[in-house]
Amino acid sequence: MMMDSLRATLLITCPDQKGLVAAIAGFLAQHDANIVDFREHVSPDAQGFFARVVFDLSGLAIARDEVGPAFAPLARRFDMQWALYFSDQPKRMALLVSKYEHCLYDLLIRHKGGELPVTIPAIISNHPDMQPVAEFFKIPYFHVPSAPGGKAAQEAEILRLLAEVQVDFVVMARYMQILSAEFLGHYPHRVINIHHSFLPAFIGGKPYHQAYERGVKLIGATAHYATEELDEGPIIEQNVVRVTHAETVDDLIRMGRDIERIVLARAVHLHADNRILVSGRRTVTFS
Amino acid sequence: MMMDSLRATLLITCPDQKGLVAAIAGFLAQHDANIVDFREHVSPDAQGFFARVVFDLSGLAIARDEVGPAFAPLARRFDMQWALYFSDQPKRMALLVSKYEHCLYDLLIRHKGGELPVTIPAIISNHPDMQPVAEFFKIPYFHVPSAPGGKAAQEAEILRLLAEVQVDFVVMARYMQILSAEFLGHYPHRVINIHHSFLPAFIGGKPYHQAYERGVKLIGATAHYATEELDEGPIIEQNVVRVTHAETVDDLIRMGRDIERIVLARAVHLHADNRILVSGRRTVTFS
Amino acid sequence: MMMDSLRATLLITCPDQKGLVAAIAGFLAQHDANIVDFREHVSPDAQGFFARVVFDLSGLAIARDEVGPAFAPLARRFDMQWALYFSDQPKRMALLVSKYEHCLYDLLIRHKGGELPVTIPAIISNHPDMQPVAEFFKIPYFHVPSAPGGKAAQEAEILRLLAEVQVDFVVMARYMQILSAEFLGHYPHRVINIHHSFLPAFIGGKPYHQAYERGVKLIGATAHYATEELDEGPIIEQNVVRVTHAETVDDLIRMGRDIERIVLARAVHLHADNRILVSGRRTVTFS
Amino acid sequence: MMMDSLRATLLITCPDQKGLVAAIAGFLAQHDANIVDFREHVSPDAQGFFARVVFDLSGLAIARDEVGPAFAPLARRFDMQWALYFSDQPKRMALLVSKYEHCLYDLLIRHKGGELPVTIPAIISNHPDMQPVAEFFKIPYFHVPSAPGGKAAQEAEILRLLAEVQVDFVVMARYMQILSAEFLGHYPHRVINIHHSFLPAFIGGKPYHQAYERGVKLIGATAHYATEELDEGPIIEQNVVRVTHAETVDDLIRMGRDIERIVLARAVHLHADNRILVSGRRTVTFS
Repeated sequence: MMMDSLRATLLITCPDQKGLVAAIAGFLAQHDANIVDFREHVSPDAQGFFARVVFDLSGLAIARDEVGPAFAPLARRFDMQWALYFSDQPKRMALLVSKYEHCLYDLLIRHKGGELPVTIPAIISNHPDMQPVAEFFKIPYFHVPSAPGGKAAQEAEILRLLAEVQVDFVVMARYMQILSAEFLGHYPHRVINIHHSFLPAFIGGKPYHQAYERGVKLIGATAHYATEELDEGPIIEQNVVRVTHAETVDDLIRMGRDIERIVLARAVHLHADNRILVSGRRTVTFS
Repeated sequence: MMMDSLRATLLITCPDQKGLVAAIAGFLAQHDANIVDFREHVSPDAQGFFARVVFDLSGLAIARDEVGPAFAPLARRFDMQWALYFSDQPKRMALLVSKYEHCLYDLLIRHKGGELPVTIPAIISNHPDMQPVAEFFKIPYFHVPSAPGGKAAQEAEILRLLAEVQVDFVVMARYMQILSAEFLGHYPHRVINIHHSFLPAFIGGKPYHQAYERGVKLIGATAHYATEELDEGPIIEQNVVRVTHAETVDDLIRMGRDIERIVLARAVHLHADNRILVSGRRTVTFS
Repeated sequence: MMMDSLRATLLITCPDQKGLVAAIAGFLAQHDANIVDFREHVSPDAQGFFARVVFDLSGLAIARDEVGPAFAPLARRFDMQWALYFSDQPKRMALLVSKYEHCLYDLLIRHKGGELPVTIPAIISNHPDMQPVAEFFKIPYFHVPSAPGGKAAQEAEILRLLAEVQVDFVVMARYMQILSAEFLGHYPHRVINIHHSFLPAFIGGKPYHQAYERGVKLIGATAHYATEELDEGPIIEQNVVRVTHAETVDDLIRMGRDIERIVLARAVHLHADNRILVSGRRTVTFS
Repeated sequence: MMMDSLRATLLITCPDQKGLVAAIAGFLAQHDANIVDFREHVSPDAQGFFARVVFDLSGLAIARDEVGPAFAPLARRFDMQWALYFSDQPKRMALLVSKYEHCLYDLLIRHKGGELPVTIPAIISNHPDMQPVAEFFKIPYFHVPSAPGGKAAQEAEILRLLAEVQVDFVVMARYMQILSAEFLGHYPHRVINIHHSFLPAFIGGKPYHQAYERGVKLIGATAHYATEELDEGPIIEQNVVRVTHAETVDDLIRMGRDIERIVLARAVHLHADNRILVSGRRTVTFS
């Protein structure tokens, strides 16, 4: 089946210039690679070029390890930032959780069902509560409570764990602690957070209460890359659900859970499948 | 056909208390009125009661003019704010417009097609541009430019016109001027504005530019009752449409037009059909 | 908290006639019941009347067991079909499953999280596969394989189990067998099925393949009461998700799972919360 | 501004094979064309390749008229079906209408507002009713009634008109007559129809009545290329809106109008902007 073939994905960001598509496609043709998906975007100010190229590894004229080195000179010529991924090396994702379980369950079930192209070497939590869930799904669970040494010590321990299990990216699945700028600096654009509002509306800790007070007719959720400014990182995905005057705050919380998990799952899928490029405060998402 | 029968609508707001539904329905049964729609809402704090009751006038045991006086003692007993409307007396709606034409066209076409239960005695604008549209749809057009006497003089002239044509409510169909608190005081919860964002996100004059900069994945529009605090009035209706990184600001403006007109039309319909009750900063909308 | 108060829900279907609301509300007022939610619907042909009335049991002037008997004469007078439910007696729901797990997980997690006002005395399956899931969520699991005696024997065993654990309604959570008319006759309008298409489009067993072949731009799911005519029962809830030419059949299946579980969960919630009345092939859903 | 630059769009369909992207992009690079948008799709069976390439004409090393002839040998080599369009030569669109006006108004207002990259040389109708609308928007109106010579004579006259005003494609804006296979043969995949249901549900003439009878919870509309099999042509765009038991057939008709016009406008935009390629019964829409 087509999906089972071995594939590589090339992500490229560079200044826009003539001949880019020809150069990239020409390079791949020269090595007998069959392009199965080519997406590109030129920013409206005509400055930035963003591309995602998926090609088949079968029939490639060079070894897969030689593709990157062979591409490097071309990348230098066009001043590219680039990365190359192989479909048989899924990204390693760590989950940070607290006591809310809906997003955790959702990602674990999707993973179990083969929906998410990742491996999950660790679930890390500041509470012990989710340990049985981790065990049921056979994922290692690490309880890293708020330490006597304070937040810095706790974050240091989490960073140590992430390094130990060689994580590629981190998902805050309703993790109820704020990560420091220093922590995030270790995983730039590789920590995904889910905020339970339609950002930039209702920043902060009580968005459903705020939504109720304001009397909005839709509530939403937003997945974004966490940055040092709270709730200000590049948005990956958003969605909303209709509400009425009849819903209580508890109803909004309940209804919001469905949106949170769908939005987070979609963002995780986009990231894991190498479909996101960051452009300042915006994301280019080739969905 | 059922829809053609003569009907009355009773809108009621009062403190919640036992026996309200029985008292209201009992009153109507006593006068042989057939209830065709009964909707009520008790606020989650169990304080406020809101109801909309539609009943058939055919077979009513008293004259329609006597219904209100007969209801008054009961209303006093329960401390009700209430209003009674008849389906053969559609509300009189004035449209305020500037140079954007999409919402104006939309409301006029719906009105012409029989969708909106209103009469439109006036279109008022600070510009002459929309006069031909008004003529085509046979609606009187009044050009009230920014006056030498300034905004106060202009608003005074608009108020005079609204009174002269006996308007029940006012719709700002992308009217690009801010109405003063004094002006709005003449039509409390009877001036509907359409804001081109998903409030409370992107308050102010350039929401599509802000949405582009922030990189949101959905854009929206909000219809609300205009109050003296800009973009802070009770929300009547909201909707959104999905956008991607590929859309320019101009694309957002174009795509937003569809949401603006659908949201505004829906809000106008709800108001004209007596389906909205205001509860502080929130609306109860029996849609 | 308001939600914790003890409540009763009265569901009523009868021919439309004058004085119904007054009679129902009057009865409740007479016994000092406080109505917290009153919803009614008169069918467009003005023949049928459908109502859902929720009232507080605190302060009621009679014992809760006396409410039904006291209401019966009034019900007879108006030729009502009616039922009375109490909020501290949640419905008993059985789940029928095969090998698909997404809907099963979804309902169990919602139940565990307190979202669904039901108890689950049994999960019944024609396969053993879901037993570990049932164990993790501490729900009794019954494996009823296709019997040598054939389908009739298998259904008889399921009926026996349902009776033994005193089930109020049954949910086919992607149960891959067709239930006979005889079986369904034991639970009229009490067996909920989820069909993986937007009915009436794509009836039958391969809706995602059909959707792909037809090239639709949205795929959907439908929850309905199972009747002897396959996929023809009264629809409770539907939803859709946008797809493009780029999605394979496998993608549609994956994306459809999200819609299936949301639609099924919503239908189960509506049924469990006594919000559905059946009117021929249609449902009145007071959501 | 970027949007004002002169651009060309190349649409390509051919069997999939290695080197296609490189060949196309290489051709354009060779002539100093700057690619501003490149989209491609390989069908899941890995047989078909579909591409849309937009490039800037400024700085092109050859005359625009020479692009096509220069591309032809390459196209032959890869067995391509292809077409080349220039942004300063908008497509010529004819509108077929009967007595429903909402889609007609909608397209004319969008056109007037600069939303649709088309010219409209003719509105053709079997009724005289829409003539004033055409006049207001300054579009030539042709009344072609059901002729004594029957349908064939009427269609012949319409074909004559379409040829005379040199139409590129035709939009049936709720045109209430069925076009013959012979007629459609003159404009293969160039006649867009709007059907007032979510196809393939509710084929035929009374979809809203059918939707009401079936009790669906969403109603929809479908824009498709008309083919000789009624309502079976390749789907371009679909959308839905939520309805409840409370809506009458008349309500569905009213609510459906909003979906019809949005779906039709979007389909027209996709076609006019050269974003659709047909693949059997499916469309590839690079939106």
